Amino acid sequence: MKILGIDTSSMAASVSVIEDDKLICEYTVNTKKTHSQKLMPMIENMLKMSDLKINEINAIAICVGPGSFTGLRIGMATAKAIAHVNNLPIIGVNSMEILAANMDLCDKKICSILDAQRNQVYTAKYKFEEGKLIEIESVDVIEIENLLKELSSNDDEWILVGEAVYKYKDMIKEIQNISIPAPSNNVTKASSLCSVAINKYNENKDVHDCYTINPMYIRKSQAEVQYEEKMKRLNNDR
Amino acid sequence: MKILGIDTSSMAASVSVIEDDKLICEYTVNTKKTHSQKLMPMIENMLKMSDLKINEINAIAICVGPGSFTGLRIGMATAKAIAHVNNLPIIGVNSMEILAANMDLCDKKICSILDAQRNQVYTAKYKFEEGKLIEIESVDVIEIENLLKELSSNDDEWILVGEAVYKYKDMIKEIQNISIPAPSNNVTKASSLCSVAINKYNENKDVHDCYTINPMYIRKSQAEVQYEEKMKRLNNDR
Repeated sequence: MKILGIDTSSMAASVSVIEDDKLICEYTVNTKKTHSQKLMPMIENMLKMSDLKINEINAIAICVGPGSFTGLRIGMATAKAIAHVNNLPIIGVNSMEILAANMDLCDKKICSILDAQRNQVYTAKYKFEEGKLIEIESVDVIEIENLLKELSSNDDEWILVGEAVYKYKDMIKEIQNISIPAPSNNVTKASSLCSVAINKYNENKDVHDCYTINPMYIRKSQAEVQYEEKMKRLNNDR
Repeated sequence: MKILGIDTSSMAASVSVIEDDKLICEYTVNTKKTHSQKLMPMIENMLKMSDLKINEINAIAICVGPGSFTGLRIGMATAKAIAHVNNLPIIGVNSMEILAANMDLCDKKICSILDAQRNQVYTAKYKFEEGKLIEIESVDVIEIENLLKELSSNDDEWILVGEAVYKYKDMIKEIQNISIPAPSNNVTKASSLCSVAINKYNENKDVHDCYTINPMYIRKSQAEVQYEEKMKRLNNDR
């Protein structure tokens, strides 16, 4: 069972193939958000280097979000297209689970964060229990100050994972019970996506096809918010 | 400070660039041992995708072994050549540290293994203390049966990391106090190499140049063993 994982939910574009319990290949580029230019060439180069053909892939795993709106759409469109052509199932994994899965087998509790702009972060909480990733609190969007206040007033040891930790590092370094991962484990990686996806597939959880899978946006895009505000103003002016 | 990491010590060829606390890019191909054909094209493609030029790199990090003899020589020759041309320092990291670094911030003790053929594994033991990777037992080569006996007679919880766990999974699954990582964390990855290398560079530990760095072979290659046996026979025949 070969799963091709695609994650373009953040600055990082990451693709990977895992076969059962073996990582076959992984490619991550975490520079500019030029996913629309880079995603397909990355997949093509990675499959070629790994002597794999796209029709040897048995399932697609896709990061459904939350994250960058444009990034999610690029990844989702690509995943749907490949799944449609090759008639493959698509397994949806959220970006918070992917970050938590980087911290595989940790005893500490894990809080994933991803920058949501306007001093807010997307976040969810997890722990590993007998090797399995368990959700403690589901995905939400929250002010970073409120999240840090909550974690620091807690008796548990926490790992705060995700590149947004660098944006808020001055606030975080004051907090005793929060650890930050090494750079290698602090970005959404498609290999972690695939590791979560294999477990979901085996439990028949979040398994879709190209028609039923959808992004998880959590909140409205800035364009939608502005459009609604504009419509409200126009209606009030009438 | 940008570090280019190269690891060809095992089946996996892995390259990565980390800048300070940020993962810029990573490329891992874990199929056949065709490192001599794939390593340079992988580096070239990864740098191009990341809009990086080789002369923007400030240091090279290389996996010194133990591992595949041919693999180590390919990686080492490549690292030395790039370092020589661009006059860069080379930071040496061993393959056991790289595997342990995958398990960043874990509370359990970590035993890294890499297949050494003939029922033996290369191994070393680590733990994370206040976010830092500490060596408990240095690199050695040992019969897998003896290692598993030692770990199972121990009161601690252990993570056994490295692809060799799949080769011996029937023996390992019987042992209560050993956990095995997800596929995403169970292979030597150049991003983990770079994470370890940044810390070593900051402590000025294992920092070499292209003339002073050398592979860590641990034991003699099969060719050397056979050559010595042949010489002994020839001497006895005289």
